[in-house]
Amino acid sequence: MAEKPVKRVRRPAPASTPDDERENLTQENWIRCAQEMLVDGGIDLVRIDVMARKLKVTRGSFYWHFRDRGDLLAQVLESWRNAATEQIIERFDRLRDEPRGLIKELLTLPFRGRSAHRAARVELAIRDWARRDPMARNAVDDVDARRISYIAQCFSALGFDIVEARSRAFVLYAYEVAESLLFNQGTASQKTQRSALVGELLLTRLAGMSPG
Amino acid sequence: MAEKPVKRVRRPAPASTPDDERENLTQENWIRCAQEMLVDGGIDLVRIDVMARKLKVTRGSFYWHFRDRGDLLAQVLESWRNAATEQIIERFDRLRDEPRGLIKELLTLPFRGRSAHRAARVELAIRDWARRDPMARNAVDDVDARRISYIAQCFSALGFDIVEARSRAFVLYAYEVAESLLFNQGTASQKTQRSALVGELLLTRLAGMSPG
Repeated sequence: MAEKPVKRVRRPAPASTPDDERENLTQENWIRCAQEMLVDGGIDLVRIDVMARKLKVTRGSFYWHFRDRGDLLAQVLESWRNAATEQIIERFDRLRDEPRGLIKELLTLPFRGRSAHRAARVELAIRDWARRDPMARNAVDDVDARRISYIAQCFSALGFDIVEARSRAFVLYAYEVAESLLFNQGTASQKTQRSALVGELLLTRLAGMSPG
Repeated sequence: MAEKPVKRVRRPAPASTPDDERENLTQENWIRCAQEMLVDGGIDLVRIDVMARKLKVTRGSFYWHFRDRGDLLAQVLESWRNAATEQIIERFDRLRDEPRGLIKELLTLPFRGRSAHRAARVELAIRDWARRDPMARNAVDDVDARRISYIAQCFSALGFDIVEARSRAFVLYAYEVAESLLFNQGTASQKTQRSALVGELLLTRLAGMSPG
């Protein structure tokens, strides 16, 4: 390991410091670079030396922003978790209006163009990492649980009882996760058909299962 | 790279050869070891030197069974693809009897004890690898497509039209894949409830969607 400079700040230093590198890069730049390395090569390639080369700075400048690699990795997860939670809250604000519309909107999520594609790639890479790392596992489980709880509220708002709302929420979420994993299966029109089917099935009441 | 001996056989050599190592290890042992490394450390850790250490043989003995690392990786995929296809055929043989029962049986697959757990871990590791490797992507897409086609036949046998049978098959398969990915979500009884719900929903005919 390289010698670490004493850590003073976590934000980019003011322009008057002697170290030019600190002016140009923020913590956020390193986190984003780490996400890209994670997508391209997996967690084992998220290495300080590799990122420093990619960002065209010295390895030492990393330590102005992070204690060590573990600190960076924790913040990569924190950044992903926050983005995922904000998304949930943002959609939740719309719930008051129309849970049925919201459920249909959720079903179109896997098919939302390039930014959705990038987000899905980052998320799948984090899921891979979570298979072998308890810290990542924890973040993934937490985000999954929050999303499922939120979707369950939509089904509760539609009158399904708590147990069944939760099951339906899981099935909807499972479908979304699987669409992003099985992206090569089926044509665009088949994807539209199956997404419509999931929507119809999940909004159908079964005789004897829900008193709703 | 180490010097390769000339390749003569792909099976364990007869006991009369001077090379003791060849007596003890088969191609299958190397493939299984590679699968374990893949699960534990990802594709970047499936390295000849690491496996040779684990199997307590010399690096050179690898080349009695495989041309190179690429050859081993191709065979890891082939072995997984064959096992997955055999499973499909075996279940397909039972289809004649009762498609409805078969669909319910498929829904219990994610919850089948230790051998299912190991198979799921290998499969998730191969999916991770497929995110970055076209050869692995190809094998995964092929296995997914075969499984979905097979499940679609069950729904066709129940009288759903071809388009809808395919959508329902995808949804069932998506649920299975997601259960293995989201294994920490929910208690055992919640898992039973949602699996039952998926079964009921997928066997429910929607007014206007299927003439079946």
